[in-house]
Amino acid sequence: MMNTPISHEALRMVDVATLRDTIRTGRYQGHTAGLAAGFLQVNLVILPERYARDFLRFCQRNPKPCPLVGVTDAGVRRFHTLGHDLRADTDAPGYNVYENGELARQCDNVAALWRDDFVAFALGCSFTFEHALMNAGIAMRHVDENKTVPMFRTNLPLIAAGPFAGTMVVSMRPVRKRDLSEVAEISARFPLAHGGPVNTGTPSAIGIKDVEKPDWGDAVDIRDEEVPVFWACGVTPQNVAIAARLPLFISHRPGAMLITDVNERADPPILDRRRAT
Amino acid sequence: MMNTPISHEALRMVDVATLRDTIRTGRYQGHTAGLAAGFLQVNLVILPERYARDFLRFCQRNPKPCPLVGVTDAGVRRFHTLGHDLRADTDAPGYNVYENGELARQCDNVAALWRDDFVAFALGCSFTFEHALMNAGIAMRHVDENKTVPMFRTNLPLIAAGPFAGTMVVSMRPVRKRDLSEVAEISARFPLAHGGPVNTGTPSAIGIKDVEKPDWGDAVDIRDEEVPVFWACGVTPQNVAIAARLPLFISHRPGAMLITDVNERADPPILDRRRAT
Repeated sequence: MMNTPISHEALRMVDVATLRDTIRTGRYQGHTAGLAAGFLQVNLVILPERYARDFLRFCQRNPKPCPLVGVTDAGVRRFHTLGHDLRADTDAPGYNVYENGELARQCDNVAALWRDDFVAFALGCSFTFEHALMNAGIAMRHVDENKTVPMFRTNLPLIAAGPFAGTMVVSMRPVRKRDLSEVAEISARFPLAHGGPVNTGTPSAIGIKDVEKPDWGDAVDIRDEEVPVFWACGVTPQNVAIAARLPLFISHRPGAMLITDVNERADPPILDRRRAT
Repeated sequence: MMNTPISHEALRMVDVATLRDTIRTGRYQGHTAGLAAGFLQVNLVILPERYARDFLRFCQRNPKPCPLVGVTDAGVRRFHTLGHDLRADTDAPGYNVYENGELARQCDNVAALWRDDFVAFALGCSFTFEHALMNAGIAMRHVDENKTVPMFRTNLPLIAAGPFAGTMVVSMRPVRKRDLSEVAEISARFPLAHGGPVNTGTPSAIGIKDVEKPDWGDAVDIRDEEVPVFWACGVTPQNVAIAARLPLFISHRPGAMLITDVNERADPPILDRRRAT
């Protein structure tokens, strides 16, 4: 069978099972924003078991940047609480492999690198609250401008666990002043997708010098009637795992998330097998 | 110094530091309902480190009965994210020690039993949403009648992790039909305190034969205009740890919860040291 590449536009039309198969067979390596509408997308971290216990503690202690929505048994490739056949090693469109804190390689899957001591973690993603905001009629500037959301290092301390420590990474979205309370209230409904903002309108208070110069992603305009609003960001755990200089860890390629079979509004975000088809 | 016993009524008047000292020094062994108003109270589970990783997974996979709000480092007695000086081994009014699935002893503290491989877990408690409901003018029958909330075994399956498996335990509160949607909405705001109901009005659908015969706690009347509403219950993890027949695990004595320094409405329920006094 030919592994013909498929476009993002074509994939917007397919069901989640077809989408997963397309990604698993290496026919799509792009970003997943706008794909599989209504299904929960997650950040992915894969670590050797010896670091898993402290990473679990780190997520529990820092739930806004690291909202844990799934964890595999050691050596098991599938997230059985998040999908009918959802593989951690093949089902993100791209993977980054880090060795001793350096990016060692990028791959379409990590099936051949899998080890019996690997544990995979799924962490909530801002797409969930962005969809809820857009459904409420609140525009997302970076989506409208087809950009990657701007992300910044901050001075907000994380609570350490074992080798995992550092400061929080945040994402920024400009919000009209009149929408601020609604935006805060809607995003707070999704504690497993970073929840409510960590700062509204005072970037210098969290150590951000220039909102026009993000550390990752693209700058976006902030208009006169808008203020910058900052949310805890799923880049935080990757950044922390890099800084910890673990001998080996793997993450999804930023923007190329793992797409689950769970409804993004499910509470809790666990596959209900009694309702599953 | 004399360890004079102190009454529940007298303790309702004291601040949380005095309350903690009173409990730590063995002068109060009673229940904690109604004490330390506004502060988060938690269920406590203490396990040897070798079971901690699977117990963390179990909590992640079953967040409604087991909402994890704190976990210590191995061998560390203090929950540093939940209090300024909050000890897992002395600060609950009473402890149950289980060996091989049997209640081996009850004690005022477990300081002398502490081991370097112990890990303590704090799990959210229904007091949090009960307070929010009572503040909204919705009466709690078991509180009005000074009873223990009725609790029931169900047929709702839990998602296993290692030796931890079984079915959910639920608590029941009668709710007036006209209050049902408000009660569901308010309790759903507290996902780390069991969140919204798991069943409303159909006990037989979750395997409960007789709502007048609870498996734990006291029966309460259900009036004509009311229906029984069921929430995931913090007795679930104890029940599961007993069934797993671990060589050793420790829990608080039911009703005698661990009282933290965290505001019960804090999101996330983590002590913010920048605001701490």
